[in-house]
Amino acid sequence: MPELRKDPISGRWVIISTERAKRPTDLVRESVQIRGNGFCPFCYGNEGKTPPEILAYGRNGSGPNTPGWKVRVVPNKFPAVGIEGDLDRQGEGLFDKMNGIGAHEVIIETPDHQSTLPMLTDKAVEDVLWAYRDRMLDLKNDRRFRYILLFKNHGEAAGASLEHTHSQLIALPIVPKRVREEVDNSKRYYQEKERCIFCDMVRQEMEEGARVITENEHFVALCPYAPRFPFEAWLLPKLHGSAFENNQSPIYTSLARILRNSLQRIDAVLDRPAYNYVIHTSPVGEETNDHYHWHIEMMPKLTKVAGFEWGTGFYICPTPPEESARYLREAHL
Amino acid sequence: MPELRKDPISGRWVIISTERAKRPTDLVRESVQIRGNGFCPFCYGNEGKTPPEILAYGRNGSGPNTPGWKVRVVPNKFPAVGIEGDLDRQGEGLFDKMNGIGAHEVIIETPDHQSTLPMLTDKAVEDVLWAYRDRMLDLKNDRRFRYILLFKNHGEAAGASLEHTHSQLIALPIVPKRVREEVDNSKRYYQEKERCIFCDMVRQEMEEGARVITENEHFVALCPYAPRFPFEAWLLPKLHGSAFENNQSPIYTSLARILRNSLQRIDAVLDRPAYNYVIHTSPVGEETNDHYHWHIEMMPKLTKVAGFEWGTGFYICPTPPEESARYLREAHL
Repeated sequence: MPELRKDPISGRWVIISTERAKRPTDLVRESVQIRGNGFCPFCYGNEGKTPPEILAYGRNGSGPNTPGWKVRVVPNKFPAVGIEGDLDRQGEGLFDKMNGIGAHEVIIETPDHQSTLPMLTDKAVEDVLWAYRDRMLDLKNDRRFRYILLFKNHGEAAGASLEHTHSQLIALPIVPKRVREEVDNSKRYYQEKERCIFCDMVRQEMEEGARVITENEHFVALCPYAPRFPFEAWLLPKLHGSAFENNQSPIYTSLARILRNSLQRIDAVLDRPAYNYVIHTSPVGEETNDHYHWHIEMMPKLTKVAGFEWGTGFYICPTPPEESARYLREAHL
Repeated sequence: MPELRKDPISGRWVIISTERAKRPTDLVRESVQIRGNGFCPFCYGNEGKTPPEILAYGRNGSGPNTPGWKVRVVPNKFPAVGIEGDLDRQGEGLFDKMNGIGAHEVIIETPDHQSTLPMLTDKAVEDVLWAYRDRMLDLKNDRRFRYILLFKNHGEAAGASLEHTHSQLIALPIVPKRVREEVDNSKRYYQEKERCIFCDMVRQEMEEGARVITENEHFVALCPYAPRFPFEAWLLPKLHGSAFENNQSPIYTSLARILRNSLQRIDAVLDRPAYNYVIHTSPVGEETNDHYHWHIEMMPKLTKVAGFEWGTGFYICPTPPEESARYLREAHL
């Protein structure tokens, strides 16, 4: 008998197939290959082919937009939003619109074209996280922005148009619906119970253990109780924290380790799939609160699972999260 | 400058790219091909290879589960939910679950393996709609069900596992989140204005015209103001109606014509893409109301547009709906 499960954060019910559960080999269709042929604007020597850099780590005397960097942040050459102008909010009868004001940046995670994020050292992954944080803190000074969305598309099937490993940041004058719902629902839970729903979830999951993938001093990696996708995995801080960018230095060290480790497990179990991850953090101006708990959501893009969810908003997950977690927990690294 | 637009029904903001808008030829990757090789359980003579039929139209003296039908409804051989049993609602600490009770049926739209839905006659498409309706009315007698989801996946990229043209129905003991939100938001709008938000939208769109694809006596086909996907198209009744299944006969005749015509336009403009469509109708037990307006949402699956939306809940649509509508309106049929 399949199960209907409710995600307590979003309120969404999903169907979890419990019989004939899909194993990793039933799901994966194509591994992400780094071909390395053709021109790459993210490699050393091609710095002039991107818009001028906003931030670079690791330079040792070399000038901007030259080789020598370890992590480099540049504006997206084909931005989804424009940085210049006013919001100019307007109605059109029933409808609302505003100018697509925002920032769209690319975080080039390493100069090494052949590396993927989990192939880097813990220290190098930590530098990527510091770059995320530095850019978030800087963009929050722009009063037009309400949310800063940090995400990574890995592999063409996950929407990456360049194979050189990179993350993206989009600063927006609105809060995305999914985040707004999470924050509002968490707030309601807090108003009723005076506890953070994520803190409650972390406590229950660590006691129960069945959906835990791995943990370290500050973080737990788990498959959520009501996932939308097979092998969906979340990284949650063990102690309450409402914003990604407002943490002490040891937290980023720990996060780098568990992020890299979790991605290595996904690569091992699912044979290097395409994936997306996204940081969910409190909206700008609401950074410090007791109800919302920042975290990272990781979704391998398993191409045999497609289709009707976009139309229906209803998800059928063919692998129970307990199974996904077991495979990921027992991965050979 | 791109635009941020808000969908008034869901409250979701989307980015619409207005410069460098993607044209149909920028988007399509693969046409759906009907290969017709191999065994097909939906063809004449193979009726014994599906579970026993629930409904068939067009038989002329032939017995059940034999050839001679025009439209045939059978249980899904690999159902996502199980028909037998109790819901057995339970808590697991913070979490809620119940048994995955439901019905999962397949509507085989024609015996002709080589046809697609828009290749059928208007009358044959109307028969498919009557089959949808008959099954919905029957399943509503089962008091466990709160929603009956009717959808079609066309093409492997849209999640269809068999190429013989068919639709699916899933009866559920819960209301899918996307539908629940639409119904609740429409209700709030009605409480404030004493008007149906969809009726207001239809009126405004028909006056303005820029997003209208086509219309007939009872329906308008349009690209919504704030679409999630390029060439997303909705079919809306011109007059208020809250439930798909509670209409007079001429409505289904009109719907068959505009559904077939709209799919022909999508096939012509996008070179026979994979697509999903889904019927949004009022939940079971709330069928008759003044605030919710049933409709069909159609989403071509254009594979170059992938990725991060699943993680972020934030959509970037690279084709303005005015452009999508113009292409579809001017399609050569």
